[in-house]
Amino acid sequence: MKLVIDAMGGDHAPEAVVKGAVQAADAIDGLHITLVGDESLISPYLKGQENVTVIHTKEMITAEDEPVRAVRKKKNASMVLMANEVKEGRADACISAGNTGALMSAGLFIVGRMKGVDRPALSPTLPTIDGKGFLMLDVGANVDAKPAHLLQYAVIGSIYAEQVRGLERPRVGLLNVGTEEGKGSDLTKKAFQLMKNAPIHFVGNVEARDLLNGAADVVVTDGFTGNVALKTIEGTAMSMFSMIKQTFMSNFKTKIAAGLAKNDLKGLKTQLDYSEYGGAGLFGLAAPVIKAHGSSNERAVFNAIRQACQMVELNVTETIAETLKQMDSEEDES
Amino acid sequence: MKLVIDAMGGDHAPEAVVKGAVQAADAIDGLHITLVGDESLISPYLKGQENVTVIHTKEMITAEDEPVRAVRKKKNASMVLMANEVKEGRADACISAGNTGALMSAGLFIVGRMKGVDRPALSPTLPTIDGKGFLMLDVGANVDAKPAHLLQYAVIGSIYAEQVRGLERPRVGLLNVGTEEGKGSDLTKKAFQLMKNAPIHFVGNVEARDLLNGAADVVVTDGFTGNVALKTIEGTAMSMFSMIKQTFMSNFKTKIAAGLAKNDLKGLKTQLDYSEYGGAGLFGLAAPVIKAHGSSNERAVFNAIRQACQMVELNVTETIAETLKQMDSEEDES
Repeated sequence: MKLVIDAMGGDHAPEAVVKGAVQAADAIDGLHITLVGDESLISPYLKGQENVTVIHTKEMITAEDEPVRAVRKKKNASMVLMANEVKEGRADACISAGNTGALMSAGLFIVGRMKGVDRPALSPTLPTIDGKGFLMLDVGANVDAKPAHLLQYAVIGSIYAEQVRGLERPRVGLLNVGTEEGKGSDLTKKAFQLMKNAPIHFVGNVEARDLLNGAADVVVTDGFTGNVALKTIEGTAMSMFSMIKQTFMSNFKTKIAAGLAKNDLKGLKTQLDYSEYGGAGLFGLAAPVIKAHGSSNERAVFNAIRQACQMVELNVTETIAETLKQMDSEEDES
Repeated sequence: MKLVIDAMGGDHAPEAVVKGAVQAADAIDGLHITLVGDESLISPYLKGQENVTVIHTKEMITAEDEPVRAVRKKKNASMVLMANEVKEGRADACISAGNTGALMSAGLFIVGRMKGVDRPALSPTLPTIDGKGFLMLDVGANVDAKPAHLLQYAVIGSIYAEQVRGLERPRVGLLNVGTEEGKGSDLTKKAFQLMKNAPIHFVGNVEARDLLNGAADVVVTDGFTGNVALKTIEGTAMSMFSMIKQTFMSNFKTKIAAGLAKNDLKGLKTQLDYSEYGGAGLFGLAAPVIKAHGSSNERAVFNAIRQACQMVELNVTETIAETLKQMDSEEDES
């Protein structure tokens, strides 16, 4: 199995990316990794493994670059060369912790869409209180989604949850403003009817209030709403952590309490850390494209690599394509 | 000034509602309150004040009732009779902590829309870390909003923030998936252009991640997205409180820490308690209609009453109507 990784993407690149890759190349059998980026910055972290090679380039896409333009103009950027490796069949899957919008563009324009998928979805696995996590899609690839897109997301998410996350009959829910059938916007009302008849375990509408309680294993939504929900979770959690910190620093008694509970409170932060679940999949493309979190450390990169390997080994892309094709032909018959 | 209150709405009705009303009737000069509901359940909490009267009815709308149908069929429900008092000019404003959907229906069908407003908005004030709070609208009255609706919300919210919350040049932001102009869905891109030219202090796009940091005083969004954002904040905060509780109960050391920090951590919960900011306004109606939180206690009811009084005294409804009319005539001229 061949993976290609953008060594220059993410806040801690290339160090965290290369270290995670080196670790994975040791740990995972039959894996070959190609790192793309500035060789002089990458090589200090290499360990001379035969199954890790480098494609050298000095150009890169930054967080500030306008995504579509950057992918078109910076033809030698590490992310663009990475996507080319997949397109030309020299790699089975790719990973980047860089500019999310640019990766979506590179995925769409270079790797290309899977046949039968109208719009790809960006799909992170988010934490739940019970530690099991849930897959949410889409969180921003497609901000003006149509009901048929949400149906495809439901099917894609269900297959991923079953095959890669190992869940039996994953519960697929539709993010909505109420739990009863008939609630919601024009979009969600129509999507509900489509999802009811899809080959998935549809559990109906799910309210945002219940996301972290694990109300569903796969939560389907349009990219605009999903992006807002994701960032609201992040923002609320961050605000609360900073308020907790303030509270504990407020007086002598609370400072002692902080000392006593410090390690346990750190555990709380880990519980909400979704790099544990790997990166966000860009689903609906011709090959697995994984967006690792921008703040990815070595461990998060390793987890994203393992995730990409699983997707390749388990033929997730092919299963999705087959299932969507079958749904299409059944629809044609009816 | 005359307020009418649905005494039977909310988790702690009628006790909390009547007690809050009795307290307000004492504290606020020139206020007359009419309570609508079951007199035998209300009277135990009354204190014989002359400025508190009761309209007796045994019928009521429950949380389980289908909103539109309930308002149409239950003609003697406390909430319906309450709205009638406003419609027929016997009260200046009304408050209910009951079924939100039913209150929106009663507002729309009985109290009626303000001239020039296409769709009313439900607008709570939510907490920020600095304690100042922000107004978000809409959080669910209008789930299929158009750009022109968002423009009206921006103007309405700005007037409310300035007049009732006393903010100078309130910063109005548009909830979006990125901060740069040109980001977002078809809806937000169009709304951005309209808001840029409106008589408000428009600060551009605001990301969900920055809501609790007070990125804007007024955050404008469609009812679907706003509802999801609101419930995501609630759900994330609740999940984190329950995780914090678990963490503190996990071992001997943390239990001691919990004992030391208990009161301060309670303060943290108060900081995130938005009943402190009064109820959610149903803006764009012919008179102020306030939705108090379902779990409102006596204090929250009191705050909602004070809020309604301010809206009446400061002629907020008239100012909004005037401003929208002026915008309309300027548009006609151009």
